[in-house]
Amino acid sequence: MASYAYLGPAGTFTESALKKIATTSDQKTPYANVTATLNAVRNGEVEFALVPIENSVEGVVARTLDELAIGDPLVIVNETTLEVEFSLLSREGFSKNSITTIATHPHAESQCRAYIAKNYPHAEIIYLPSTAAAAEAVSKDEYSVAIASEGAAELYNLNIIEKNIGDSSGATTRFVLVSKPGLIPEPTGYDRTSLAAFIGADHAGALLEILTEFSVRGVNLTFIQSRPTGAGLGDYHFIIDAEGHINDERVGEAMMGLHRICEQIRYLGSYPRADKVAPTTDKSNHDDVFQEAASWLVDIRSGRKI
Amino acid sequence: MASYAYLGPAGTFTESALKKIATTSDQKTPYANVTATLNAVRNGEVEFALVPIENSVEGVVARTLDELAIGDPLVIVNETTLEVEFSLLSREGFSKNSITTIATHPHAESQCRAYIAKNYPHAEIIYLPSTAAAAEAVSKDEYSVAIASEGAAELYNLNIIEKNIGDSSGATTRFVLVSKPGLIPEPTGYDRTSLAAFIGADHAGALLEILTEFSVRGVNLTFIQSRPTGAGLGDYHFIIDAEGHINDERVGEAMMGLHRICEQIRYLGSYPRADKVAPTTDKSNHDDVFQEAASWLVDIRSGRKI
Amino acid sequence: MASYAYLGPAGTFTESALKKIATTSDQKTPYANVTATLNAVRNGEVEFALVPIENSVEGVVARTLDELAIGDPLVIVNETTLEVEFSLLSREGFSKNSITTIATHPHAESQCRAYIAKNYPHAEIIYLPSTAAAAEAVSKDEYSVAIASEGAAELYNLNIIEKNIGDSSGATTRFVLVSKPGLIPEPTGYDRTSLAAFIGADHAGALLEILTEFSVRGVNLTFIQSRPTGAGLGDYHFIIDAEGHINDERVGEAMMGLHRICEQIRYLGSYPRADKVAPTTDKSNHDDVFQEAASWLVDIRSGRKI
Amino acid sequence: MASYAYLGPAGTFTESALKKIATTSDQKTPYANVTATLNAVRNGEVEFALVPIENSVEGVVARTLDELAIGDPLVIVNETTLEVEFSLLSREGFSKNSITTIATHPHAESQCRAYIAKNYPHAEIIYLPSTAAAAEAVSKDEYSVAIASEGAAELYNLNIIEKNIGDSSGATTRFVLVSKPGLIPEPTGYDRTSLAAFIGADHAGALLEILTEFSVRGVNLTFIQSRPTGAGLGDYHFIIDAEGHINDERVGEAMMGLHRICEQIRYLGSYPRADKVAPTTDKSNHDDVFQEAASWLVDIRSGRKI
Repeated sequence: MASYAYLGPAGTFTESALKKIATTSDQKTPYANVTATLNAVRNGEVEFALVPIENSVEGVVARTLDELAIGDPLVIVNETTLEVEFSLLSREGFSKNSITTIATHPHAESQCRAYIAKNYPHAEIIYLPSTAAAAEAVSKDEYSVAIASEGAAELYNLNIIEKNIGDSSGATTRFVLVSKPGLIPEPTGYDRTSLAAFIGADHAGALLEILTEFSVRGVNLTFIQSRPTGAGLGDYHFIIDAEGHINDERVGEAMMGLHRICEQIRYLGSYPRADKVAPTTDKSNHDDVFQEAASWLVDIRSGRKI
Repeated sequence: MASYAYLGPAGTFTESALKKIATTSDQKTPYANVTATLNAVRNGEVEFALVPIENSVEGVVARTLDELAIGDPLVIVNETTLEVEFSLLSREGFSKNSITTIATHPHAESQCRAYIAKNYPHAEIIYLPSTAAAAEAVSKDEYSVAIASEGAAELYNLNIIEKNIGDSSGATTRFVLVSKPGLIPEPTGYDRTSLAAFIGADHAGALLEILTEFSVRGVNLTFIQSRPTGAGLGDYHFIIDAEGHINDERVGEAMMGLHRICEQIRYLGSYPRADKVAPTTDKSNHDDVFQEAASWLVDIRSGRKI
Repeated sequence: MASYAYLGPAGTFTESALKKIATTSDQKTPYANVTATLNAVRNGEVEFALVPIENSVEGVVARTLDELAIGDPLVIVNETTLEVEFSLLSREGFSKNSITTIATHPHAESQCRAYIAKNYPHAEIIYLPSTAAAAEAVSKDEYSVAIASEGAAELYNLNIIEKNIGDSSGATTRFVLVSKPGLIPEPTGYDRTSLAAFIGADHAGALLEILTEFSVRGVNLTFIQSRPTGAGLGDYHFIIDAEGHINDERVGEAMMGLHRICEQIRYLGSYPRADKVAPTTDKSNHDDVFQEAASWLVDIRSGRKI
Repeated sequence: MASYAYLGPAGTFTESALKKIATTSDQKTPYANVTATLNAVRNGEVEFALVPIENSVEGVVARTLDELAIGDPLVIVNETTLEVEFSLLSREGFSKNSITTIATHPHAESQCRAYIAKNYPHAEIIYLPSTAAAAEAVSKDEYSVAIASEGAAELYNLNIIEKNIGDSSGATTRFVLVSKPGLIPEPTGYDRTSLAAFIGADHAGALLEILTEFSVRGVNLTFIQSRPTGAGLGDYHFIIDAEGHINDERVGEAMMGLHRICEQIRYLGSYPRADKVAPTTDKSNHDDVFQEAASWLVDIRSGRKI
């Protein structure tokens, strides 16, 4: 039986996502925010934590990226994705015509902006720390309605006034499962490797150099996001997802290249992609070709070969 | 007399920033959120709008980027920066020991996390749409204290319990002034050009190509941020700030290069940098060298020269 | 009726190649060496000159490259290729067993090295300025046999002892037709553009920069050769053949790029490829896309568009 | 006592160059041409062979490059350079006014072209396999004068009519000392590594890729020359000299990169530069930084570090 922390409260999309990874008998504990969820792993309360990292409409979850890149070290060991569908929820017997306040999380609000503008242009928007918290507040009659998941409706015994009110149908959130460093899942053939690259001051053109380190070894990137280091405007680090596993020769050599040119590289884990898409890379970048080149170099250096 | 919209309410940092740009006689109107502020320009209510675009600690303001890249076209015509200092504010006579709720904007909260954790670990955090709204709510006795600017204390007649409570001293926010398309400020010698690049599906390595279009013409980038297009996980566009003015030959040629290789490029304006830093570029990328090369090509093509 | 100089004497491969370009009524004059052949154009004796530029086995003809890159300006206006077949020639009645000397041009000797080593290892090799001169010398009984073309056998009334004695069957020579500057043939859709790039002292990495100027605009190179500038060991210039015509937008922009970064660029002509192979380039590098990008930039700069 | 072959005959510039490397007691044997000189090492007659590889005016010695790249394997173990000065030589009592023939090697002729054109425009040029052979022929009264070295004048007892008749004063030739594979000189801190890269058919953009493999690891190139593979026009391989020793980490990794992307790479030796110029490379490409990156990767892969 494994133990999991997740971004709570109960009824959030993260809980739904966790059900795709954990078994029913596993212990699952909601935490109030991303930092608290990850701290539960750091301080040993749980083995794993599940937190959202990016949404296909809203973009990245900045705090997740910052915690992984700058907080006490953790590694990603798995990921899962969930199609996010928003519903408008109210207490039993509440009339649509009486809506004066809409409670939800800012990200949910931004994904339902067009719906709100069209249907409830005069409603006041109340930001709460999660959509589940919004559902709970509505269940306590604090606000007219909540924008939250269907799971939250069930949990807080609310009615679903309208389903699928998001502006983009099929918005998807990606969640990452993290553990303490030391755990590297076996390569599956469809892995992703995450890292944070800190460039160092006054290193113009550094991003081009970073991309070239990957490109020259045939490693494609699936995600790149800049985040401020906090040192000043224009001072960024990059969170990068690359195709392949840290044990792949091409990924390893690219990582060494980054280690040489960057002020700091933090390895954030290698783990199977939720979409099970295998890397597309040229034959010249396969492991056996790397290993053959290494043997060849040993022979050359020993004078045994030309 | 010019007319300005700004991200309100009165008492926000954006209002303070606007005072650095507008004169006292100019008309300044607060709007409830970034979209509304920008819409005031779009629908002709005001000539200009000032909104935050990035913070040295918190990162980008996603909605500003999305509005500029995807919303109805606007151009940036100026920028300004403001050191953001957070204060803890209360009504007259309120005791620090009675703090049970802290109202603020999520970005402000994230910049004061360490301070809150150390001093008020048990206080409930209340998210409001702006730090000024938090100050106003405290003035109405809705919450114990607000994290907001000193300007908000003055506006809402609150006491400053503690100044400079941000985790990073010297956090800075950059604000952009936008107008309707058509206005391109004269080059100053220390300009920035902003754009949004939409890569198109299935174009691996596109970011490397984009960076190369700039690099080969000696144009340095000062900002690059990926944002989801909304079409699905992994589908991004990029907002880029480049050194130089659209009228600079090297910037123009790089823009044409992007126009050729990208699905879509949106020009977001050329404007003087707040820090007045001039581009560092090799002599071979100066305007006169570009123009000489163009004359030379005309001569070559006409057969007049070899 | 056009007038042509060619690398003589009569009976050389260059004369055979000229027959593929000129009509029988055209005036064709042999010259003693590459420089003299090209000077005949420079001083107005003839309109055109045909000289070899590279051979698929022997490599480049250094003097041709140096004359074009450094001598008084000329432009290439056409090219042709010829499969070079060497024969062993003797006077009537001469016995193979009496061969003590083999006269030929050094390039021909190097292409028949294996044949000579196997069959006539003890014969003395006599270098003459051309294979035709070797045939002529043999016709005058100065040497035992000549390695030359079948045409030379006919011209000097020699017997062919053995045909196709070259080590590589199918060795091919490329010849270029040059004229005074000012003549640029119309684009055909399968053109080549030649140029010489002088990098300037102390410009490490310059070749990578040069290649990038072409690559970023989708211009493929078909030939690149370094030649000493004469200023010292390690001081080179480059002769480059690129796919496309100087009138192609992508070629023109690449040339301007080179003009900016190199100490000197000499345009050496645009002309149809003998093999009629059209450039392979991405749609984003076609002329119409370049022109659309230029119109777009004009609109952007005028403020008419975003 | 070491044994050396050199490009003869006695009196050539190569003999002069050999005196800079070998001791007077070493055995030094002239051979008739580059191939024969190198074969003396291949078949065990001598330990080392000295041959010219490039001249600052004339360019590369194609046969040396081809023998090293395509002939039976040899490695370069040392290099030396010699300033080449040409003199006009005649037998005792010969009058300048009687010059009808000038014997010399084609490379020498091309370096004295301006001198000949000005002073002896009507003299017939006779090509011989070496300048020493020309001197010898003149000593036998076969031709009027020879263009050769002062050493040849002494050896063949000729008068020096005029010294330093080369068009470029200070033309320099670089010579390489080769041995059988297996010998790799110790790194000196100012080494050069030579190699031949065979790209394989239909690999457009391969040269750019090759240069990038070096550039991304901070390895500068000092020499790059294309040579035909013999398979057809446009089918080239490249001979490259890189700064550094095969034992340098950055050079080794670049070589492995080439080994992966090229059809074939032939290592041609690492040896001290005659000019003793040390590589200029960024700190991030020093051996210790490479080794630290490798240790770091081992730690990451073992899960011991993040």
